[in-house]
Amino acid sequence: MSDPAARVVPVRAVVGAEASDQFDHVAVEEPLAIQVNYGPLGKQRMRRLYGITMRTPGHDADLVAGFLFAERTLSQPSDVLEIKTVEPNVVRVELHPDVPFDDARSRQHFIHSSCGVCGRGTIEDLDRHLDPITSSDVFPADLIHRLPQRLREAQPTFDRTGGLHAAALFDPAGELLGAREDVGRHNAVDKLIGAEFRAGRLPLRHRLIVVSGRASYELVQKAVAAGASALAAVGAPSTLAVDTAAAFGLTLIGFVRDGRFNVYTGGERVG
Amino acid sequence: MSDPAARVVPVRAVVGAEASDQFDHVAVEEPLAIQVNYGPLGKQRMRRLYGITMRTPGHDADLVAGFLFAERTLSQPSDVLEIKTVEPNVVRVELHPDVPFDDARSRQHFIHSSCGVCGRGTIEDLDRHLDPITSSDVFPADLIHRLPQRLREAQPTFDRTGGLHAAALFDPAGELLGAREDVGRHNAVDKLIGAEFRAGRLPLRHRLIVVSGRASYELVQKAVAAGASALAAVGAPSTLAVDTAAAFGLTLIGFVRDGRFNVYTGGERVG
Repeated sequence: MSDPAARVVPVRAVVGAEASDQFDHVAVEEPLAIQVNYGPLGKQRMRRLYGITMRTPGHDADLVAGFLFAERTLSQPSDVLEIKTVEPNVVRVELHPDVPFDDARSRQHFIHSSCGVCGRGTIEDLDRHLDPITSSDVFPADLIHRLPQRLREAQPTFDRTGGLHAAALFDPAGELLGAREDVGRHNAVDKLIGAEFRAGRLPLRHRLIVVSGRASYELVQKAVAAGASALAAVGAPSTLAVDTAAAFGLTLIGFVRDGRFNVYTGGERVG
Repeated sequence: MSDPAARVVPVRAVVGAEASDQFDHVAVEEPLAIQVNYGPLGKQRMRRLYGITMRTPGHDADLVAGFLFAERTLSQPSDVLEIKTVEPNVVRVELHPDVPFDDARSRQHFIHSSCGVCGRGTIEDLDRHLDPITSSDVFPADLIHRLPQRLREAQPTFDRTGGLHAAALFDPAGELLGAREDVGRHNAVDKLIGAEFRAGRLPLRHRLIVVSGRASYELVQKAVAAGASALAAVGAPSTLAVDTAAAFGLTLIGFVRDGRFNVYTGGERVG
């Protein structure tokens, strides 16, 4: 029954105008720190924090081997003496002493898939500079139901390519304040927030950000950093997205499609 | 008519057992180098390559501002004197001289969304170490049609969470050789290739990798580095994915769903 890749969380499920308290299985997202030991064998090998990536726990040694292979740090199985979990969410790679490891490289190769966290020195450092969201807006349920349609209307290139993510900004009255597209989900959000930043409109108090894909930790982090009240995603959230939204008071809404959505945190802002 | 976010490419469209030559609009993905000028104003300000990210061209200044805000390099609009495109796919940020910019930070904060490229010194460096794919396999069309179903069957957690990407490995006879899940699409591929790496089964000659999402540059780069013959995606490819697959002889298949798919490159391996 215990699956390290999923966790059960309470949600308020909204179908049309009906809301009910339910439980939802959420995909687990947790940070993984990758340490590399290298150089001559001995009691105190040289060690470097290679980076931190967000991932779903499970097959961590495969993940680290595949990542370091793609980075060209590893080229054959004998390059690795051992890959082991030394504490929760920390994996250490013992390189063969003959494998050249450029110490400088390790600071230049940070990591994919959720790099709002790239290069942070420690896992604890991730959220240090975020402030809580305290605004008391209410976003009507019927506005939320219409977000996917309105996002699509604001997205001219998607219809032809099927290949672009989108992010858009709304106020509680449902006015569309901005929209951006990109092959990268995080880029679309950075473009949206960057335009507001350049116009001097940060923090984004009383604003909802909607994204076309899933809600990862990094998108929640960006929404909180920008001071938005709510983040709504057409796709699923991760556990770390839910936990971070809860910790900073962001309203997090997922699975906004087909006339329904789930409210994971900050339900007081959904009317 | 000219949309910088989309490009038309030739494809072989396969519907059931019928193939025809068509054209498809593909979302543009191109690398963007971010340079930061900082320190005292003058003829020769200090300059640092902050990083390279993959993105869809357009609103580049917004992207860079939003990214540097999320990174906490920028905190207010006056921190920036100017953001300008100095050559194609290179943006330079002129920081206000009073903005503290830790030179070391810039080497530690590399970039999201497609970080197979994180920290590469130049755009030209991206593909330098890849070898062409020369194997002469044939993957039958009916195998390709069945990939989404077989991927789903190999993905126990997705059904409950709706929130996990998957990657799986097949041979030309349709045998499933491995499958991995993760919240991060690139992580799922790293786990899949990492398991083969650790087992001494690289290069992945005569193998097809299927992924649940879109096919970006980074996934093509990982597939080529591992020596696979083909990459099939349930979602759309990007232009840089198509161009890189063509350059290295990888068969690239997209939109594998609902009884149809598009072959973008390497059609000789689709039977």
